[in-house]
Amino acid sequence: MIIDIHGHYTTAPAALGAWRDRQIAALQDAGPAPSASELHISDDDIRETIESNQLRLMRERGSDLTIFSPRASFMAHHIGDFQTSSAWAAICNELCWRVSQLYPDHFIPAAMLPQSPGVDPATCIPELVKCVEQYGNVAINLNPDPSGGHWTSPPLTDRSWYPIYEKMVEYDIPAMVHVSTSCNACFHTTGAHYLNADTTAVMQLIQGDLFKDFPTLKLIIPHGGGAAPYHWGRFRGLAQEMKKPLLDEHLLNNIYFDTCVYHQPGIDLLTRVIPVKNVLFASEMIGAVRGIDPTTGHYYDDTRRYIDSTPYLTDEERQQIYEGNARRVFTRLDAALKARGR
Amino acid sequence: MIIDIHGHYTTAPAALGAWRDRQIAALQDAGPAPSASELHISDDDIRETIESNQLRLMRERGSDLTIFSPRASFMAHHIGDFQTSSAWAAICNELCWRVSQLYPDHFIPAAMLPQSPGVDPATCIPELVKCVEQYGNVAINLNPDPSGGHWTSPPLTDRSWYPIYEKMVEYDIPAMVHVSTSCNACFHTTGAHYLNADTTAVMQLIQGDLFKDFPTLKLIIPHGGGAAPYHWGRFRGLAQEMKKPLLDEHLLNNIYFDTCVYHQPGIDLLTRVIPVKNVLFASEMIGAVRGIDPTTGHYYDDTRRYIDSTPYLTDEERQQIYEGNARRVFTRLDAALKARGR
Repeated sequence: MIIDIHGHYTTAPAALGAWRDRQIAALQDAGPAPSASELHISDDDIRETIESNQLRLMRERGSDLTIFSPRASFMAHHIGDFQTSSAWAAICNELCWRVSQLYPDHFIPAAMLPQSPGVDPATCIPELVKCVEQYGNVAINLNPDPSGGHWTSPPLTDRSWYPIYEKMVEYDIPAMVHVSTSCNACFHTTGAHYLNADTTAVMQLIQGDLFKDFPTLKLIIPHGGGAAPYHWGRFRGLAQEMKKPLLDEHLLNNIYFDTCVYHQPGIDLLTRVIPVKNVLFASEMIGAVRGIDPTTGHYYDDTRRYIDSTPYLTDEERQQIYEGNARRVFTRLDAALKARGR
Repeated sequence: MIIDIHGHYTTAPAALGAWRDRQIAALQDAGPAPSASELHISDDDIRETIESNQLRLMRERGSDLTIFSPRASFMAHHIGDFQTSSAWAAICNELCWRVSQLYPDHFIPAAMLPQSPGVDPATCIPELVKCVEQYGNVAINLNPDPSGGHWTSPPLTDRSWYPIYEKMVEYDIPAMVHVSTSCNACFHTTGAHYLNADTTAVMQLIQGDLFKDFPTLKLIIPHGGGAAPYHWGRFRGLAQEMKKPLLDEHLLNNIYFDTCVYHQPGIDLLTRVIPVKNVLFASEMIGAVRGIDPTTGHYYDDTRRYIDSTPYLTDEERQQIYEGNARRVFTRLDAALKARGR
């Protein structure tokens, strides 16, 4: 079984974007925001966008199940205030839940949070609780920079984030540390801001001692960990200078890297440097890079090909990356699969 | 011959830091700034700090010549205004020039610029001219984020940077794109801000068309290019979606990556992915990572060992990375060496 732990509903029906546009326009005009009931998306609308896109490619590439969350770049937590994010997150999370209800064998949801710059992260708890308890979400996406490229929130090790971590530990759900769109002209969203956030998160976790306070907390660093595995020597050396434990102990009982690295040498490095137990299969399909690599003739984001081809894994290790690790890290996914006899 | 293109005077005599502290204190008290003449550093002071540190390690590791610039994290362009940076840059650049005068076989200077947030980069030209014409500098360090982690300047492709590029082209000197200390709590200076800036710069250059306007401009992306080589597939794919030329043509006639990557797998990836002509030997010694790697028993930043051991280079290619590329990119270095019969 092949589990892709990083997929977003990037192909949602156009009505979703139109509703969001109206919500943003209302902010600008200080007019009344549209209500959630004004958004109409039918099951057929959902089926059409999923079957012709994600599900088609999953079948072509041979992956079975995707952990599916709202489109990351559209979370745009910097827009409006908590009410804005709250209404938007509720709509997006409901939509991913509906996808999982229509295709229970192929999609299981992960939630976005209604974060807002300068607002206490604890305000996200009710949406988180709803998504886990009512929608069967198996994970959350946590944005370390709700400002969208201005980095005005404190590091992830700050106590203001702790209410989220407490709830994660209680439910035993992991968080993917994932920023949203950049509204800073310096940072291209998917080419700079995403990767920078991944690198930044790893370094914040090295500087702090978060996992002493939360020994069972699980964080996923997407996009192959940003720059971290490529610069693993640098990170080991910096941790050493800060008198931190070896990274195996300091980080690798709690953090995981996904395989959203879109060429063979990158996956070779990842699987050579990072222990197998800390690597989770993912493609972020359909996402930032949708084209075909002219040097291989295959989609850049068809990451399964790289995993299958890397010399740094045995078949058994490959299966850990495809399935075993995901079932260990996303315990609610494992329970849901077992309940269905898988 | 082995040329290290990335060294900073991180070990400057304590009097330098004390002068800077007085300069900063004067800003806080709105008192008079210390004058440059109040700083006293003798040739013996310089000799002591260089011979016991950089020169000792160069001899141990077998590198011959270092392109030497002021300590990057101490540039701190966010402090004070243009006058503050101007006085500070003049002092630091003079000091690196003195090192090069005392050890002409081993050090040649590269200049920091008196950048200041919100100030027109053109104001840096007089210092740049002085450093090239009077001090024999062969390159500059250009800070894409003088705010120190708030990223308030426009991208490097913005026309406000063009006066610097025009002068670089006129003198045929490259710039290393190098940020300074981070005053944003989210970003660890050497573990996050440096790498993020490298990644960010590469993506800015992909988004723009800077090298159409400046076909002979040369930019060095330090720290192995941040996350870029590890995510080269992602960057190729993003460029493709933006209808840009292939990166070989779009970037690789103008940008270079150094080898400040502190473990073997990282250097293996760099030399496998990036053409040899675009890789420049460097260690950033004595810099961010000063310890000994317990897994190898050698200094993390002894990058020559990784270059010597990588299977992705022939001996001839290794020599290009150690010497040939540096002489081609830093033409004023090559001229200076030839003038000395080297």
